[in-house]
Amino acid sequence: MIARLDSRAADFTARLAALAPAGEADGPAVQARVGEILAAVEARGDAAVLEYTARFDDLAVDSMAALEVPAERLQVALEGLPAAQRDALAVAAARIRDYHERQLGESWQYTDELGNVLGQQVTSLGRVGVYVPGGKASYPSSVLMNALPAHVAGVEDITMVVPAPGGELSELVLAAAGLAGVSRVYTIGGAQAVAALAYGTETVAAVDKIVGPGNAYVAEAKRQVFGRVGIDMVAGPSEILIICDGGTDPAWIAMDLFSQAEHDENAQALLLSPDAAFLDAVAAAIEELLPQQERREIIAASLARRGALVLTADLDDAVRLSNRIAPEHLELSVADPEALLPSISAAGAIFMGRYSAEALGDYCAGPNHVLPTAGSARFFSPLGVYDFQKRSSIINVSRAGARVLGDVASTLARGESLTAHARSAEYRRDAAPEH
Amino acid sequence: MIARLDSRAADFTARLAALAPAGEADGPAVQARVGEILAAVEARGDAAVLEYTARFDDLAVDSMAALEVPAERLQVALEGLPAAQRDALAVAAARIRDYHERQLGESWQYTDELGNVLGQQVTSLGRVGVYVPGGKASYPSSVLMNALPAHVAGVEDITMVVPAPGGELSELVLAAAGLAGVSRVYTIGGAQAVAALAYGTETVAAVDKIVGPGNAYVAEAKRQVFGRVGIDMVAGPSEILIICDGGTDPAWIAMDLFSQAEHDENAQALLLSPDAAFLDAVAAAIEELLPQQERREIIAASLARRGALVLTADLDDAVRLSNRIAPEHLELSVADPEALLPSISAAGAIFMGRYSAEALGDYCAGPNHVLPTAGSARFFSPLGVYDFQKRSSIINVSRAGARVLGDVASTLARGESLTAHARSAEYRRDAAPEH
Repeated sequence: MIARLDSRAADFTARLAALAPAGEADGPAVQARVGEILAAVEARGDAAVLEYTARFDDLAVDSMAALEVPAERLQVALEGLPAAQRDALAVAAARIRDYHERQLGESWQYTDELGNVLGQQVTSLGRVGVYVPGGKASYPSSVLMNALPAHVAGVEDITMVVPAPGGELSELVLAAAGLAGVSRVYTIGGAQAVAALAYGTETVAAVDKIVGPGNAYVAEAKRQVFGRVGIDMVAGPSEILIICDGGTDPAWIAMDLFSQAEHDENAQALLLSPDAAFLDAVAAAIEELLPQQERREIIAASLARRGALVLTADLDDAVRLSNRIAPEHLELSVADPEALLPSISAAGAIFMGRYSAEALGDYCAGPNHVLPTAGSARFFSPLGVYDFQKRSSIINVSRAGARVLGDVASTLARGESLTAHARSAEYRRDAAPEH
Repeated sequence: MIARLDSRAADFTARLAALAPAGEADGPAVQARVGEILAAVEARGDAAVLEYTARFDDLAVDSMAALEVPAERLQVALEGLPAAQRDALAVAAARIRDYHERQLGESWQYTDELGNVLGQQVTSLGRVGVYVPGGKASYPSSVLMNALPAHVAGVEDITMVVPAPGGELSELVLAAAGLAGVSRVYTIGGAQAVAALAYGTETVAAVDKIVGPGNAYVAEAKRQVFGRVGIDMVAGPSEILIICDGGTDPAWIAMDLFSQAEHDENAQALLLSPDAAFLDAVAAAIEELLPQQERREIIAASLARRGALVLTADLDDAVRLSNRIAPEHLELSVADPEALLPSISAAGAIFMGRYSAEALGDYCAGPNHVLPTAGSARFFSPLGVYDFQKRSSIINVSRAGARVLGDVASTLARGESLTAHARSAEYRRDAAPEH
């Protein structure tokens, strides 16, 4: 059902490594197919997008205008929701907005002792594209998490794309788009939607950055247009790592593992505890609760393939192991999570204490649920407002500054045999009076 | 010699587009070759690195130990420099450090009205690799600009790689590494050095991120290991765009164009001015000064291939055009640069006023000289301390918070048919007392 490991066993590292996700086998074929789609949309614009949409999404229309959902329609969707859903979405949006406003970067300048003004000008990106998967994996929470940081950053044009197979669209997704400040929606998807956003077409304006999750074709398309536009990180299967001291209700922990495992069979759920009896209790809770879960087949497959209950020497041992894994989600389900926090060197989001279930962070705690996976929390950060702002350096050299900096730059440029650099600096140095 | 364009001419957009850099023709061959090298180093570690180093760099040694330059050697190089060079490097390093310290991100937390603690924990990356090209393009300024932000961020292990063809190493590069806080240097290069940093070998410890410029093989290798480790942006040819009101000495502007053009034949130097007579004067200065330049052949080729003197309707027209191009370097060589600054929507670094030659920023003004190229200033920022820090979200839900958030999360999770998420939230909601 779910592997039982011991961090002190001789074969532990090998057994843990065996739980890593399988590599992608369909690489080259997907690459080539995506390359063709991108080239077709770049060359033929709307016409190519319409053809692919008819073919892949069973949605045949005459013009891109028929695939555009106007902003008013988003408000209609919001007003049409059952009150409980509308209120829940509104609370989530407000909390996410409040948290992300604290991430806003600000421009700064200072004047150095030579009178030079140096600084950094922070501006928002101009136009952003948000990809939202269609069909079953169409998640309103994902719309909020991807679009709200762009809106908070001040991005004036947020274009959302969402495939509508056979014309079917989620009202929850449209409502979330309305709450999140999306400017317009096109019901297109796949690599063709990424291409339309990256290159622009007669109808779709080219964007500066594309964010949001998608299938293998979407991920590959984003990879291929990277550089032409910005993209967010390419996400792998979702993961949770729970460190528990044994004091949390085993049913709560079992359900937290399930909530990760129910995403898909490649999701990973790990529990680390120094308390062997607690691991037994969680194993029993898993046995008992699994049959009641709607998504029990996916959960069982995920736990069997990638899950583990790991006995550790102590909590410090668990933290060391967690730092090596650098999990996307880390729950510190312990009596004193503050004591462990300073030792955590890498994790996408850290859930502190027994009440901080990952599910609360997935929807409405405030922080973003788009997080680095597969160990990339060693160098990536959660999606944030900073991903929708850019910086420009500001350099305003004074006459006095030109004398000093001109001399330094001249010496270094000549050391690199870049003599036009040196002369450009010397012109300013020699024109400046002594100060 | 250099194109003369008019922004109001009917063929302007086409003529400007013709100055874009040529696409890379050697893509697939380089991709395959690099893929082989990466696989060999991943499989065979040091042995593969030693073989490639003997073959490509004409440097045959028995062990990786012979390719390691200890930290003490960096200090020896620094002390052995002529005083003027040593002082110039030290001033540059101090100024770069001072500027970058202002970029340090800080952790923050707040408590919301439900008693939930939310925040963001900022930590430095653990281990960083800095690639430095060898031979003629071995630039000490580049060592400072790539390594110092990592050091300021608090990265504890900075590993530098620099190929030493035939065993030859630049004392200036070693000295700069010493000043910049580099932990150790290996004299290896090419895709094999990138592979050693990304995967680790028996000798080289795997890093979390690789930064620094390199040739087509190095750039492709970084692209291929991206995701396994972080990388900086992939840089294209360097560019300058100068907006001048006609009041700057034409020789200064000519030399600023040269300083960009001398990098290589694909570098781009553009001058925009509403003053036709000034453009004539700069053209004359180019004619006069070019024969005196050591790198006149590269400069002439670059100006002929990609340079232009552009007559604009007025300064606002020049700014609009600059925003469309989103240049790496932008000089506002005008009487009142502050008046133009708010209108600049995208540029890597903005040089304000007649004394702010780009060359001063390249070496010692303080801001980084690693900047987004090819229009990517629309979404990328200069290399900075923020590239060597990562963020983790902090979520500590109170009992009272669990009641409210649990209810919202449950509603939204059920809307997405993720019922294990819903139950995980409900366990916390229902355990929490009314508040």
